[in-house]
Amino acid sequence: MQQSEQQNNNLKAPKAFAEITTDGSFKRQTNRFTTPFGSKEGELPVEAGRYRLLWSAVCPWAHRSVIVRRILGLEKVISLGTASPMRPKLPHVDWEFSLDENGVDPVLGIRYMSEIYKKSDSDYSGRPTVPALVDIKEQKVVNNDYFKLTNYLETVWAPFHKENAPDLYPERLRDEIDDLNDVIFHDVNNGVYKCGFAQSQEAYEKAYDTLFARLDELEDRLSTNRFLFGDYITDSDVRLYATLIRFDAAYYSAFKANRNRIVDFPNLWGYLRDLYQTPGFGDTTDFHAIKVHYHLSNHIASDDQKSFHILPKGPDLSGLTSEHHRERLSNRAEKFLKK
Amino acid sequence: MQQSEQQNNNLKAPKAFAEITTDGSFKRQTNRFTTPFGSKEGELPVEAGRYRLLWSAVCPWAHRSVIVRRILGLEKVISLGTASPMRPKLPHVDWEFSLDENGVDPVLGIRYMSEIYKKSDSDYSGRPTVPALVDIKEQKVVNNDYFKLTNYLETVWAPFHKENAPDLYPERLRDEIDDLNDVIFHDVNNGVYKCGFAQSQEAYEKAYDTLFARLDELEDRLSTNRFLFGDYITDSDVRLYATLIRFDAAYYSAFKANRNRIVDFPNLWGYLRDLYQTPGFGDTTDFHAIKVHYHLSNHIASDDQKSFHILPKGPDLSGLTSEHHRERLSNRAEKFLKK
Repeated sequence: MQQSEQQNNNLKAPKAFAEITTDGSFKRQTNRFTTPFGSKEGELPVEAGRYRLLWSAVCPWAHRSVIVRRILGLEKVISLGTASPMRPKLPHVDWEFSLDENGVDPVLGIRYMSEIYKKSDSDYSGRPTVPALVDIKEQKVVNNDYFKLTNYLETVWAPFHKENAPDLYPERLRDEIDDLNDVIFHDVNNGVYKCGFAQSQEAYEKAYDTLFARLDELEDRLSTNRFLFGDYITDSDVRLYATLIRFDAAYYSAFKANRNRIVDFPNLWGYLRDLYQTPGFGDTTDFHAIKVHYHLSNHIASDDQKSFHILPKGPDLSGLTSEHHRERLSNRAEKFLKK
Repeated sequence: MQQSEQQNNNLKAPKAFAEITTDGSFKRQTNRFTTPFGSKEGELPVEAGRYRLLWSAVCPWAHRSVIVRRILGLEKVISLGTASPMRPKLPHVDWEFSLDENGVDPVLGIRYMSEIYKKSDSDYSGRPTVPALVDIKEQKVVNNDYFKLTNYLETVWAPFHKENAPDLYPERLRDEIDDLNDVIFHDVNNGVYKCGFAQSQEAYEKAYDTLFARLDELEDRLSTNRFLFGDYITDSDVRLYATLIRFDAAYYSAFKANRNRIVDFPNLWGYLRDLYQTPGFGDTTDFHAIKVHYHLSNHIASDDQKSFHILPKGPDLSGLTSEHHRERLSNRAEKFLKK
């Protein structure tokens, strides 16, 4: 056993140093495949059955697309391939389809996410990321733009929405939603990673302060609003949810984002329970995958720690199914705006 | 810098494998120096100014003696030497007097704890631990029996107690206190280490379940008792305090003891605040030292993680000074039993 551990050490994945700036801050790589979906020249055609969404249940960036896909009823239109929460032991950072039979995605026939990225761009040198939307016909990643992907699903994919699908991105609110999404991205969604991947105390503390200042502000906003934009769930709620639901189980400990847990914020905690209990949210949330990944398999878990293979048993998340009484903040019986 | 890190890797401390059983459980080494204090033949004489108590503010086993020393007014009778919370980078596990001028304990003239252990027993092969009571005259560790040390201070050291010192170990309760101390030792004090140092999932989960079952039981006990034995603080409270006060800041994350934090137990949390606000407890508690040690310097923090030098900024512990209203559970105005 010691010998095989030694071998693994020799093959261990390099740290994401390419994404660390000189002051020790984490700077996330940009997305490579950002062609929009649409009907114009050069855009990606919107077609049922043509694309496969690759995700891992651990990943907040991919989770948002999977939530929106389910809420809008796009599950039969865009198929789903699921990578394991455990990153493979390879010399580079990757995702592996080891949950599938024979360890291969049944539609794309790939074992590692990097294979489809390399097929798409033989010069691709970034981390192969999820979500990745693959054109099954072309066998290529055509879009990995997690920032805009939910918006495409909400707008140009409307012809394929289920009957009575809600409007998560109402036209009159789009500018405000985009602005808030930007803030949530920098300070919260990516803010937790800036805490966890910082390689200087200063960069870490700056990210920590920014993150919790923003959570304090959102806590206040949610004292009078059932959801971020009032009575109805929007795209912004999906994005905030993906981080909040991972917070106490992962980021609090594994990323040292530990001023408070979400359960300590009365409004954020009620809001999180409200969303968790809404179809599309809790039913796409896999805490086991989340814990396995962040505690045993992320970039910063050391080989020593991983070799112990100890998965934290806590925290107690049973409170997520408890009553939240958030409906008292709403003027509507429904949580979703009908189109 | 990379070169010096490489050198440190070559010199890195071995894991405490000697204290891991075949099923992956952590089994704490026994104490080497256990001669009791007393006036009988072969016992250690009780003398003012003769001994120096070596501790580190991080260590719960040493903290209990420092609390009792202060409560009983033994500070001028037994001097105190304080090792750094950061373990030195040496090929073996040690403690270092780097907080002192020139990095040397001013009374004993030692740089590392191991020096005095070696002077005491040239064959000593265990970890040099705190607390260690050193006979200054003989320049030897004469007692490192953390389990019994507070009891010696409470009993045979009585001639040197301050005026009106309380009775932390009343004769009529000693059997019960001893029994409870035993339970607290196995399931709580050492229980958190069994979680943190376990090297199999089974051993970890067993320790976790035992720990939280015991905390649930203590939570219940403290619903009607202000302190473990009713109206007065006893030796058992000191022992429980030393673990509880480190729980949310260290064990919850660093040792994966994360079903709940202490702040989530209403009675344990009120009880902890009550003790923290009592002279001898909060004023001997050094959260910075605790966090530095458990997050940057303990056995299981990897070299990779330590090389980042990131200290968690949280958790928010400001609640420790908030009102606790525990006095409503007591029939007495005083927290201590007078002798």
